[in-house]
Amino acid sequence: MRELRVIFVGCEKPENAGFICRVMKNFGFHELWFVNPIADLSLATITAKHAIDILKNAKKVASLHEALKDVDIAVATTATRPKSRRNILRNYITPREFAENWAQSRGKTGLLFGREGIGLTNEEISMCDFVVSIPTSEEYPEMNVSHSAAVILYELAIAEERVKAIREMAGEQEKQMLINILKECLLNTSMPKHKLEVAIRVFRNVIGRSYLSEREAKVMIGVFRRLCHQKDYLPS
Amino acid sequence: MRELRVIFVGCEKPENAGFICRVMKNFGFHELWFVNPIADLSLATITAKHAIDILKNAKKVASLHEALKDVDIAVATTATRPKSRRNILRNYITPREFAENWAQSRGKTGLLFGREGIGLTNEEISMCDFVVSIPTSEEYPEMNVSHSAAVILYELAIAEERVKAIREMAGEQEKQMLINILKECLLNTSMPKHKLEVAIRVFRNVIGRSYLSEREAKVMIGVFRRLCHQKDYLPS
Repeated sequence: MRELRVIFVGCEKPENAGFICRVMKNFGFHELWFVNPIADLSLATITAKHAIDILKNAKKVASLHEALKDVDIAVATTATRPKSRRNILRNYITPREFAENWAQSRGKTGLLFGREGIGLTNEEISMCDFVVSIPTSEEYPEMNVSHSAAVILYELAIAEERVKAIREMAGEQEKQMLINILKECLLNTSMPKHKLEVAIRVFRNVIGRSYLSEREAKVMIGVFRRLCHQKDYLPS
Repeated sequence: MRELRVIFVGCEKPENAGFICRVMKNFGFHELWFVNPIADLSLATITAKHAIDILKNAKKVASLHEALKDVDIAVATTATRPKSRRNILRNYITPREFAENWAQSRGKTGLLFGREGIGLTNEEISMCDFVVSIPTSEEYPEMNVSHSAAVILYELAIAEERVKAIREMAGEQEKQMLINILKECLLNTSMPKHKLEVAIRVFRNVIGRSYLSEREAKVMIGVFRRLCHQKDYLPS
């Protein structure tokens, strides 16, 4: 079993607590602990919206030590990346690297987010197994805590397929049918072979890059069939 | 040249306008247009924080048509995914698929975010080239608009390396040195060959998964050197 506990240390603003509940539920995570929140959490319901259950079930504890007691892997997050490579404590991996390892993991991971003003202290980070930092612009590296949570939880959920795009993509068969009917159309027009090859390649590229759905493929096949056999559709 | 214009249609809450400015700057994007905002944008400065310049330079127009006039590719975002596969209009790709295509693109892309309540209308979506939707939990698919923006802009910025992790990762050379010194250590202890091979494999795995920095590799090499040549470090 793979489980995630989000641990928000020293939350200062109720809006952010609520937003974190919402992004957790958006990506299918449910366990939230607050360590020493300063904010009045009863005000967090406004931004939590339909994730109010996560807020209601959230645990409030007085020390990080307590929140990490039954956690197998503790992960710190920071926007303060080391200036010197001698800074071993804040040496970090990216959310995508973290997500790759997460998707292979078992046990309970505690994911820490720090207070809005100064983030996690060095002491808090030193209680963790490693640090994750989102690559951001040098011009303004500090994200709002709930937006960082959105990005990191998104990466975790995608990596383990907790959330996924449910679509019926066109399979190889439909794509081949589409190319075949197109080829037939073009042969009917006596297009020279070298031009035909280029045309087919262009269609393959466009189809490939467009992440064609099954339905779209069928509509396109219909279009080319009609173009190919125009005379059959002529009013009699 | 690849450029992005974020287009926020019918913004209802100033906090979200400000948050969108902030995540834009976090990921190195700067051009923002508002279409028919309902919110009092002067209140957006609070959440925009150090991205107030984006808010100040943002353009306000009365129609989506105007905002798309000089855009080469218009991209809609939605949390309302089609229930039926016959719904061609909202057939979507994921942010990661979008980002792959974006990183290869030239010209100006307009990225639309819809009003907080109901998102983009079908009419607005039909003015776009394609739709992007973030895979989210069925339980609560609707993200706050600024959190969706964070996830999509993050994917775009990562894909084109607008933002990246700046770290000095241990290279193959350091990793090999580390393995060599470990091997030397273990040979000194007369470890049987098959056990030694397992031990080396374990260390390679751990090093690989840990995204070792150059500095960390050097410290570890120092540790094994000291273990290997203990007698040299004994007090004389």
